[in-house]
Amino acid sequence: MSLFTARLPVAAAALAILPAFAAHATAPTTDVAWDLVRDLTTQIGPRPAGSPAEARAREWAAARLKSLGFQNVAIEPFTMRAYRRGTDKAELVGFAAQPLAITALGYSGATPDAGITAPLVYFPTLAALEAVPDGSLAGKIAFIDHAMVPTQDGSGYGPYGNVRRKGPGVAVAKGALAVVIRSVGTDKHRNPHTGAIMWPKGIKPIPAGAVANPDADQIARLAATGQPLRLHLTLTGQIIDNAPSGNVVADLPGRDPTLPVVLVACHLDSWDLGTGAIDDGAGCAIVTAAALRAQSGGAPGGTLRTIRVLFAGSEELGGFGGEAYAQKHGKEPHALAMESDFGADRVWRVTTNFAPASDAVKNRIIAALNPLGVVPHDGPADGGEDVGAIIAAQKLPVVDLNQDGTHYFDLHHTPDDTLDKIDPALLAQNVQAWENTLAIVANEAGPIAAR
Amino acid sequence: MSLFTARLPVAAAALAILPAFAAHATAPTTDVAWDLVRDLTTQIGPRPAGSPAEARAREWAAARLKSLGFQNVAIEPFTMRAYRRGTDKAELVGFAAQPLAITALGYSGATPDAGITAPLVYFPTLAALEAVPDGSLAGKIAFIDHAMVPTQDGSGYGPYGNVRRKGPGVAVAKGALAVVIRSVGTDKHRNPHTGAIMWPKGIKPIPAGAVANPDADQIARLAATGQPLRLHLTLTGQIIDNAPSGNVVADLPGRDPTLPVVLVACHLDSWDLGTGAIDDGAGCAIVTAAALRAQSGGAPGGTLRTIRVLFAGSEELGGFGGEAYAQKHGKEPHALAMESDFGADRVWRVTTNFAPASDAVKNRIIAALNPLGVVPHDGPADGGEDVGAIIAAQKLPVVDLNQDGTHYFDLHHTPDDTLDKIDPALLAQNVQAWENTLAIVANEAGPIAAR
Repeated sequence: MSLFTARLPVAAAALAILPAFAAHATAPTTDVAWDLVRDLTTQIGPRPAGSPAEARAREWAAARLKSLGFQNVAIEPFTMRAYRRGTDKAELVGFAAQPLAITALGYSGATPDAGITAPLVYFPTLAALEAVPDGSLAGKIAFIDHAMVPTQDGSGYGPYGNVRRKGPGVAVAKGALAVVIRSVGTDKHRNPHTGAIMWPKGIKPIPAGAVANPDADQIARLAATGQPLRLHLTLTGQIIDNAPSGNVVADLPGRDPTLPVVLVACHLDSWDLGTGAIDDGAGCAIVTAAALRAQSGGAPGGTLRTIRVLFAGSEELGGFGGEAYAQKHGKEPHALAMESDFGADRVWRVTTNFAPASDAVKNRIIAALNPLGVVPHDGPADGGEDVGAIIAAQKLPVVDLNQDGTHYFDLHHTPDDTLDKIDPALLAQNVQAWENTLAIVANEAGPIAAR
Repeated sequence: MSLFTARLPVAAAALAILPAFAAHATAPTTDVAWDLVRDLTTQIGPRPAGSPAEARAREWAAARLKSLGFQNVAIEPFTMRAYRRGTDKAELVGFAAQPLAITALGYSGATPDAGITAPLVYFPTLAALEAVPDGSLAGKIAFIDHAMVPTQDGSGYGPYGNVRRKGPGVAVAKGALAVVIRSVGTDKHRNPHTGAIMWPKGIKPIPAGAVANPDADQIARLAATGQPLRLHLTLTGQIIDNAPSGNVVADLPGRDPTLPVVLVACHLDSWDLGTGAIDDGAGCAIVTAAALRAQSGGAPGGTLRTIRVLFAGSEELGGFGGEAYAQKHGKEPHALAMESDFGADRVWRVTTNFAPASDAVKNRIIAALNPLGVVPHDGPADGGEDVGAIIAAQKLPVVDLNQDGTHYFDLHHTPDDTLDKIDPALLAQNVQAWENTLAIVANEAGPIAAR
């Protein structure tokens, strides 16, 4: 904390420059990041991919970016495969009859409106489900448990996230009528975690839901009694083809408009259960505020390079916005890409994919982040879903400002992803880390080389 | 912690005595309290007052008490006015359209199945609602905010709890169509807190619900914008007269059956949203385990006085079980009454209502609790809902073992009241504090005098 506190005068200095920038801003504000995430999560609220609420969020975001002084503000539409939630209900019947807190997973198949009732078969791990013979679960509902715990770098989401991404497809192969999983999350609240399923090609989706961790504990304890369990399951959501979505793109033009742009991204859509504060309203707030401060905090006339902000649509169901951006802008030169999509906890680590030729730039970034408590790391840097396609297409350099993920999966994809979970001081540390980084990469005259 | 750790050998010694007691127990167990609350919350789960699940809980409890060696185990039926939940839904429409996490309050009036839509009028406090003219809210939904924060002694539940108990009645007087309150709770989760309304006599109930704290924050922020708010509200639960409920009563006979009994109580019903772990499965577990240990841990043949356990029914809707017990047993002499109904966090304080003539007994209790980190307090002692009626009828002495309430109202009456919220070490500290207290009062030959 002391390192960041020591840095506060710099943030104050940046704020002091704001009056020079007020010509752009129709509504001058003391905290661009907080105001943006507060208003997006409060006045728009949940904004699922491909929904009318996401469309309202695009209009809102375009107007807000214009009012903040961004140029070339554009809504860029595309269509995608959406999932519209219906009724989500689950209850044990017979032994230990009781309701369970459940959410449908994205792209779940649908039960009839009256639901289905079938034996519930407990598997402690995805591997245990994979081990039973194909077709052996006919007429049954598979329950897949797992053992995810918090990690600072969020790496538990890879292996345990596969229970959600791939588990339902495995359940289909085993012949299951439906599948229920322990939420991919690390909290102990009755708020289940949703998220998209990655069905294997050609498979007909079965109903698939996630129960909250306390409910999964309950199922595990009941399974341990040896008594047969039966579940009444109702998940009536629908898959919608060709739903309208779109990206919002906006520029802070650089002093040399002939240079390739620096792209900074977040996603505008959220899961429907919460209001998308940490996933990913915070990311949009951070990149927007940092871009403005990098522009106004340095040389007169702004940064050397244009900073482009991408609020991607429909990230949650499979990175549709990032793909659409790469398709539309793939022929325009880009200098570097970054993304903020891992909450609003402090930036604790920085990684890049820079080639050795760009070590000097990398070291300047590391030095600029050091006073904020950020450590360098040699691990891979890949941006994320919203910039992944353009990075792959153009082999771009990337800077990843890793946020602390210890508590992220307590809230991720749950009803609890709401504004109150954001600590304004930590949000400000993110903005400062991003500003310090952008002040370097957007003022670098020469190219930065990727590995 | 060190005080409690220092006491652990005593607990271990008590456990070592268990084999002598195994003649009673059909299923010997190493932890009576944990097993009881685990099995009640897992195998029965939610058990709302006057419901079939509460009836199953009575049968389960009677069987468990018999298997633990209790005598005179009886289910004592009564009827009461119940509330059966229907559909609970709320969504803002128009400006900031979005769903809100809501629960109906106990004894809410019902909306039509299709719900109602009306302007939502924000009141920052119950006093602000009280201040507007009667009849002035015709056709509107009142929203009552408040500012409850955690306290160790739980005293916030008095004044802020009135928003729930009395606020709906005030809203009726003001002519409101319906009323929504900020949950009476101290957490930041999307889990609203239910609880009973105390309607003034002769009033026709209106629909009344509580939104989760993050949703109340959302309403407060939106109200601050000055934009008019509209709410679509659906609460279809029903009030049920003459619902079947009942108490479970069981004795550990004392060496002198002619002496008045020591009554220890908890309540068996729970709100329907959770599984009633801290409210009040833990209480039943604590009093049962402590009674058994007091009986088996002292002189051969058990305690001098009979210890009677009361698992009261239908506490949550107004203490029906406690009233029924006093009616049925009001002519039997009682020596003293105690109740555990404030979660499973550590006992931190002891209060009594003893007259000065019984100072010696009080001081022995205080001394016996001192090694467990428990401090004496001169405040009033009143037992609680389950023993309040018999205490009032017989002017009984009471010992209150106050549990730490700092986190209690994070969970109270929410879906989050589940087993995982109980720390087994703190549950064991409760059992030890109760055992130490019962070992004194149930072996006291002379009467204990109340103030």
